[in-house]
Amino acid sequence: MSKGRVCLAYSGGLDTSTILVWLISEGYTVVCFLADVGQEEDWAAVEKKALSLGAERMIIDNLQEEFVEKVIHRAIQCNAIYEDRYLLGTSLARPIIAKAQVKAAIENNCDHIRPYPLPKSMAENTLTYHDMRSSFRTDAQAKGIFPIFIPVHFFLANKHSNDQVRFELAFAALRPSLKVIAPWRLPEFCAKFQLVFQHHPLRSRLIQPRPELRLPLGRADLLRYAAEKNIPVSSTPKEPWSKDDNLVHCSYEAGILEDPDHTPPKELWTRTVDPLDAPNEPTDFSIHFEAGIPVKVILAGQETTGSVAVFKLLNKIGHDNGVGRIDIVENRFIGLKSRGCYDTPGLTIARLAHLDLEGLVLDGRVRELRDQFVTHSWSRLLYNGLYFSPEREFLDNSIVFSSQNTTGVVRLRAYKGNVYVLGRSSNASNLYSEEAASMDSLEGFSPQDTTGFIAIQAIRLKKYGEQRDKDGNPLTQS
Amino acid sequence: MSKGRVCLAYSGGLDTSTILVWLISEGYTVVCFLADVGQEEDWAAVEKKALSLGAERMIIDNLQEEFVEKVIHRAIQCNAIYEDRYLLGTSLARPIIAKAQVKAAIENNCDHIRPYPLPKSMAENTLTYHDMRSSFRTDAQAKGIFPIFIPVHFFLANKHSNDQVRFELAFAALRPSLKVIAPWRLPEFCAKFQLVFQHHPLRSRLIQPRPELRLPLGRADLLRYAAEKNIPVSSTPKEPWSKDDNLVHCSYEAGILEDPDHTPPKELWTRTVDPLDAPNEPTDFSIHFEAGIPVKVILAGQETTGSVAVFKLLNKIGHDNGVGRIDIVENRFIGLKSRGCYDTPGLTIARLAHLDLEGLVLDGRVRELRDQFVTHSWSRLLYNGLYFSPEREFLDNSIVFSSQNTTGVVRLRAYKGNVYVLGRSSNASNLYSEEAASMDSLEGFSPQDTTGFIAIQAIRLKKYGEQRDKDGNPLTQS
Amino acid sequence: MSKGRVCLAYSGGLDTSTILVWLISEGYTVVCFLADVGQEEDWAAVEKKALSLGAERMIIDNLQEEFVEKVIHRAIQCNAIYEDRYLLGTSLARPIIAKAQVKAAIENNCDHIRPYPLPKSMAENTLTYHDMRSSFRTDAQAKGIFPIFIPVHFFLANKHSNDQVRFELAFAALRPSLKVIAPWRLPEFCAKFQLVFQHHPLRSRLIQPRPELRLPLGRADLLRYAAEKNIPVSSTPKEPWSKDDNLVHCSYEAGILEDPDHTPPKELWTRTVDPLDAPNEPTDFSIHFEAGIPVKVILAGQETTGSVAVFKLLNKIGHDNGVGRIDIVENRFIGLKSRGCYDTPGLTIARLAHLDLEGLVLDGRVRELRDQFVTHSWSRLLYNGLYFSPEREFLDNSIVFSSQNTTGVVRLRAYKGNVYVLGRSSNASNLYSEEAASMDSLEGFSPQDTTGFIAIQAIRLKKYGEQRDKDGNPLTQS
Amino acid sequence: MSKGRVCLAYSGGLDTSTILVWLISEGYTVVCFLADVGQEEDWAAVEKKALSLGAERMIIDNLQEEFVEKVIHRAIQCNAIYEDRYLLGTSLARPIIAKAQVKAAIENNCDHIRPYPLPKSMAENTLTYHDMRSSFRTDAQAKGIFPIFIPVHFFLANKHSNDQVRFELAFAALRPSLKVIAPWRLPEFCAKFQLVFQHHPLRSRLIQPRPELRLPLGRADLLRYAAEKNIPVSSTPKEPWSKDDNLVHCSYEAGILEDPDHTPPKELWTRTVDPLDAPNEPTDFSIHFEAGIPVKVILAGQETTGSVAVFKLLNKIGHDNGVGRIDIVENRFIGLKSRGCYDTPGLTIARLAHLDLEGLVLDGRVRELRDQFVTHSWSRLLYNGLYFSPEREFLDNSIVFSSQNTTGVVRLRAYKGNVYVLGRSSNASNLYSEEAASMDSLEGFSPQDTTGFIAIQAIRLKKYGEQRDKDGNPLTQS
Repeated sequence: MSKGRVCLAYSGGLDTSTILVWLISEGYTVVCFLADVGQEEDWAAVEKKALSLGAERMIIDNLQEEFVEKVIHRAIQCNAIYEDRYLLGTSLARPIIAKAQVKAAIENNCDHIRPYPLPKSMAENTLTYHDMRSSFRTDAQAKGIFPIFIPVHFFLANKHSNDQVRFELAFAALRPSLKVIAPWRLPEFCAKFQLVFQHHPLRSRLIQPRPELRLPLGRADLLRYAAEKNIPVSSTPKEPWSKDDNLVHCSYEAGILEDPDHTPPKELWTRTVDPLDAPNEPTDFSIHFEAGIPVKVILAGQETTGSVAVFKLLNKIGHDNGVGRIDIVENRFIGLKSRGCYDTPGLTIARLAHLDLEGLVLDGRVRELRDQFVTHSWSRLLYNGLYFSPEREFLDNSIVFSSQNTTGVVRLRAYKGNVYVLGRSSNASNLYSEEAASMDSLEGFSPQDTTGFIAIQAIRLKKYGEQRDKDGNPLTQS
Repeated sequence: MSKGRVCLAYSGGLDTSTILVWLISEGYTVVCFLADVGQEEDWAAVEKKALSLGAERMIIDNLQEEFVEKVIHRAIQCNAIYEDRYLLGTSLARPIIAKAQVKAAIENNCDHIRPYPLPKSMAENTLTYHDMRSSFRTDAQAKGIFPIFIPVHFFLANKHSNDQVRFELAFAALRPSLKVIAPWRLPEFCAKFQLVFQHHPLRSRLIQPRPELRLPLGRADLLRYAAEKNIPVSSTPKEPWSKDDNLVHCSYEAGILEDPDHTPPKELWTRTVDPLDAPNEPTDFSIHFEAGIPVKVILAGQETTGSVAVFKLLNKIGHDNGVGRIDIVENRFIGLKSRGCYDTPGLTIARLAHLDLEGLVLDGRVRELRDQFVTHSWSRLLYNGLYFSPEREFLDNSIVFSSQNTTGVVRLRAYKGNVYVLGRSSNASNLYSEEAASMDSLEGFSPQDTTGFIAIQAIRLKKYGEQRDKDGNPLTQS
Repeated sequence: MSKGRVCLAYSGGLDTSTILVWLISEGYTVVCFLADVGQEEDWAAVEKKALSLGAERMIIDNLQEEFVEKVIHRAIQCNAIYEDRYLLGTSLARPIIAKAQVKAAIENNCDHIRPYPLPKSMAENTLTYHDMRSSFRTDAQAKGIFPIFIPVHFFLANKHSNDQVRFELAFAALRPSLKVIAPWRLPEFCAKFQLVFQHHPLRSRLIQPRPELRLPLGRADLLRYAAEKNIPVSSTPKEPWSKDDNLVHCSYEAGILEDPDHTPPKELWTRTVDPLDAPNEPTDFSIHFEAGIPVKVILAGQETTGSVAVFKLLNKIGHDNGVGRIDIVENRFIGLKSRGCYDTPGLTIARLAHLDLEGLVLDGRVRELRDQFVTHSWSRLLYNGLYFSPEREFLDNSIVFSSQNTTGVVRLRAYKGNVYVLGRSSNASNLYSEEAASMDSLEGFSPQDTTGFIAIQAIRLKKYGEQRDKDGNPLTQS
Repeated sequence: MSKGRVCLAYSGGLDTSTILVWLISEGYTVVCFLADVGQEEDWAAVEKKALSLGAERMIIDNLQEEFVEKVIHRAIQCNAIYEDRYLLGTSLARPIIAKAQVKAAIENNCDHIRPYPLPKSMAENTLTYHDMRSSFRTDAQAKGIFPIFIPVHFFLANKHSNDQVRFELAFAALRPSLKVIAPWRLPEFCAKFQLVFQHHPLRSRLIQPRPELRLPLGRADLLRYAAEKNIPVSSTPKEPWSKDDNLVHCSYEAGILEDPDHTPPKELWTRTVDPLDAPNEPTDFSIHFEAGIPVKVILAGQETTGSVAVFKLLNKIGHDNGVGRIDIVENRFIGLKSRGCYDTPGLTIARLAHLDLEGLVLDGRVRELRDQFVTHSWSRLLYNGLYFSPEREFLDNSIVFSSQNTTGVVRLRAYKGNVYVLGRSSNASNLYSEEAASMDSLEGFSPQDTTGFIAIQAIRLKKYGEQRDKDGNPLTQS
């Protein structure tokens, strides 16, 4: 009899394959789940591997359209950005993946499972083991998936902590009653793979694990277990950094990138051509927006529509022209700093175009409020994993409201790492008009009015200047 | 006997030359003033012309160092930006020019002048005439100078209104007792140049002046007057747009640019090479910051120091590689929208480098507060001409405080329109450390802590999820 | 033949009666308008007077319900407050009055009127006369009405400028094509009443009018004209301050109150009993809210419902117990400071009760965003007369969204100038629960979690403490 | 030989006395610490008890002046308030206590202690026991002290969690290397007092402890241990709520107050007379501020100066007149809601007076920025225990800067639960002037200016109105 039903986020890599086999060997029925949020993957191979290893079912859920329409469009509508530079690629995908995983668990009757009865030893040891190898992340995160319900708990405080927080907070909101168990906290699992690793696969220096943490696991054990259980293992050597890939971007972190002064090697970037290798001829195209959403792209006379197709075309234009690379040190939710490199071709283009169109059609004061509060807060919420929260709903409501009139066309040029606005037009708003711009014929306006406008503003400033004079600290000496 | 002493902002162009000659003919003693804020100018020719036309004195004030150290450095320290894109080039220079003009007026005893006794006609007509030609602006503004004390009042509501507001608010604060008189409001002056112009020099379409405004002036009258008074006139044809130039940027507005879908012609840009024409080899260099200020640039092994020299070198790097062009529609202070093109090579580079270094050294929460309030507000204040105000002082105090630790080096690459960060380093802060980044050895931190962190955050979110379920609106269906 | 149709805001006082008679004498057809926003007024007498003086029609529009439901409820829902103390009583009524006036003008065919043809003299003199007496305001504003289309322009820069701005900005948005003409700018009108007044009725000191402004009017002229035209004049002596009254509050400004250290006399306050004279027994009652709106009050076992009735009952409770008096110096839109006294009984109570209920039911993060951005901005917009603006709509959308769950009951006690919360309850939210509050049985929460929460927060702070130590500036010495 | 030196925050109550004795019995040398932040206490009795129970030393540190000058004055200067109502009384004291405790530990050589070697059992059990009784808090917190270094960990998630977070974050920043150990996590301690309590002392209903938490402790065990070790126990029955007292306020929470609709009983309040029992005669007095700090109070002709004396006098005035009671439900840092009652006499008065004076002297725009960003953020930081943080320093810098001119006198009246402003005056600022207020003689200002001011503002709004008309959604129908 099965001990219970578990929905395992499964990537096909060494780590999640090991967990799958081990779970089955412990008596669980396992349903595997993999989200397709636009990452590169051999889907058939993953499914075949899961089933061959004993999974009851392999669910591969194509979430691309939902990802684009529910989250990416909202990011575009509010010009989302974190700390002035990061377009939030990883954070945007997490809520969509988490929701699909929870739904898969429910549909497959995995949601009522309780943590299986703990053996006696655990009551005493529950919190003795609590670490994992970041090598796991390479497998799982790079494929946009995460083990849930029996998830991997990554190195917790920094590099991977953001994602851990994002997933678990989403699970908590989506189905508060679900239990999320990390194998690396289970003594049986840890006992099985208890080898202090010697050399960190992602880093060039030897790691001194804190003895008091009893770091229990290592790649060697995993490989030994895989051999024993006939789990196929990829022979491709790992890159000296960690990646995460989805429709929006690819992120690169850890390993050699931990030195913030180490320039990312040319071969690191996967989603954009090196600007130095980009075509010598620029690519001109236009994006049509409706209510803040890119609905059509015209490139070389050809129209592309459909939310996913449009976004993928922007990705391609950005890719080919090397648009959207950044290399930053950012502030993590938990208070530490982390270095990340991101290439985000399509969203970089879409964001610029949207910003530009807003210049033409969005009221200046609405924009100011939206920028300072909604954009800032929405971006930070997403970064911190608070998508499923009342405050995100509150902000989404404002974003949609402020986007009502953002309809028009932006003409753009991509060229060797950059994208330029060539022009924009809209019939949706009367806020810009050439006549008003030139002011030669603005109805009901008299040039004299500016005098009054200035004079009123100046009342307070004159008092300020007078006070400074009186205080012996005149502004002319400032 | 002189009717009074007037300090005239003098550019050497047709408009201000006309005003100079006319003021003298009316019996005034005129001291001319021209600020050097880094714009292109034949200084000797301007001085010669002013004196030959009868000015008592021609003051040419080199304000470059003050401009860089008082204002540009502050902009860099807070990553100043307006509406996500405009680096405020014009706005940054205005306060420095205004202050120097006021000081020049005081030193030359022009500050106590009162508006000369108004003839009877004026008592009845003061506000009947109140317009001017934008052709004036082409001369005066393009050279970074403005007539003050007898200033030109530009087309008031839009294109030039921002600058008018900026100058007059600065004058009001700097010396509240000073009188600022626009010749275009003086009936004698207007009577002299009273021609309704037929064709706007900056625009391709015919202009319908509002008859009720009795637009009194025109280029034809000015030219006739110049011929009559032997005022030399440049024979260079005007460009079909308006420019303003200083150390930070050149702006391009009006004329053919009033159509927001009209792509700026290649020859418009003066401060940057066309990215398509930029070198095929990238330029690598590094900027050293101390307390948020760029103090040294190393390029090809050569060190450059000194506030102005450093900034000019960044301008050159940006220029040669086509860095810093934007083309936007922005929201003016007065509520209208306006299209502007700007090329801002050095500041674009310095801002990116500073942003990047802050990622490494500035506390995340301080940064968040600084970004959302100080940066936003400082940028807006500068844009709106409120430099000399208690709120700007209040914000400057915060900027300087938050920059204390922003010391370090950023390595950069400029290439065909873009600038990339290659790496950064600093000894000034302990906030980033490779050890902490990898989390393998963070002292006093247990991976288990993240669990608690998540659990606490999740309390509220679980309640939210439960409430949504109870309300029949579960998050899994959202 | 009529020169045109004018919609005059008419209060029945000396000023607007004079304007009415004068307009008719000049050949206009005049429709009078008076808004009932809850102020004290003898409506029949006003109507009789208007018609007897020759108005075509006297429109008295009861706007109380619209006032409460469109604006006051929104103010309650967002806890609107200006500069931490002012509940915006005057500002809240202005948009409702302005809209009704515009509708009245349209319905009575007054909206297509253009300013009547100006006589020659005016072309030369339009802007020569531009002042008025503040005595006008006493009449008009105290009754919650304002002359529009031929409005009174008050002393413009300070005391009354806020209202002038509020009305005119509302008119501009509501019907951009409408012409608003101030009689005090019309030379014919000014010529008629051209007496420099000697003694300001509202102030104890002699006023030195600026000779250059040629202050053209005065009460003496108005009285002489009234006598000549048989306009009835009240014989009640004026109070030495100015008032404005509506359903929300009564404001007191100017006159003896201009000295900010002059305590308002006991007899000034009209909407509240002096706390020293309030009953010795407290009044206990409860307010029921639905979606942030007070829908029912229970007092002494009696239920009151209906938006206006509920608000009036709160006004009565506040009145009888002396609740809601403030005396402040506030910052006007135009940059000057002004002293105002306000008594606001019902809104003071409703705001406190709403704030309290939000404590129980509103998510803390939504509240933080709403407080810092929506409440602050909405209050400021209303104060500045920007009700009819895209940004107010944008904020209203957020207010309504955030109020969805603010349903429950607050029990209160009013006593001698204060109101206290006795308790609150709600079934609308699960955010507060006694179980969670005591934490003895919070599902899924382990006390250990707090340790992790603290440890994560502490990472950054420990680094801060270490840096301070290293810099020789330890926090223990701070 | 001593196992180590421990600095114990000692209140003299049952809980900390038990810990003291137990620590000694385990072989530690204990230095006791108690902060005097203005709470009621029999200091001599506490010292005597500590020494009689075996403490090496009893440190009683009078921190009142530091508390007032370092923190309370800052709160007054920025009008600190949390969620519009709470004046942060508890939060303000915590950083001062924490700093003094850390200094005491250092001075008594307690800072270098490491956690004593854990017995074998602990390696396996460390985190198995992790709870405590809230009865502890009653003792310790009510006296403004907290056990540190061997601190008590309170019920962690809600009621007491705020303080736990505040103390531990302060310790982390002040001396990152210090170890903070909770006895309730020590298996030896827990084993000693392992009784599941049956009846919560603070609540009227039976508590269902979660069996899986193995709640190990209870009052019964503590009392048995006390009897066994001759620890004197107070015979005063406990009140059915929890208190915390300091110079600023007394807070009341938990117990019967957990029902948010249960009105606090009359006898609960300790720092204020019931308004119904307050004198029938009002108390008039004045506060003199210098740079935002109350430096003098004049009451009945008598001057009081000195930071502590002034604050205590305000407390007395507030106490006698029943000023400063609030009863709220607030949002805790950790995301839960909690009901608290607070009486805060002096700070309520000082805050109102300061707010009022700022109305007279502080520039409106500086105030707006300060209010929206500094006040909001500072209050929240303090609430969340982030006093020792770079962001608090950043904000303090702004607070002090903005207070430079807040010098003047506010005249006040306290009466039966309320405080009223009677008037205010200042020579420190020219921002308010009666002349400007009346606008009859404002130099350089023309009433016409308002017209221009309005017209410029109206440009955007007219476009908005026109767009709404065009869209078939006219504002007159809104």
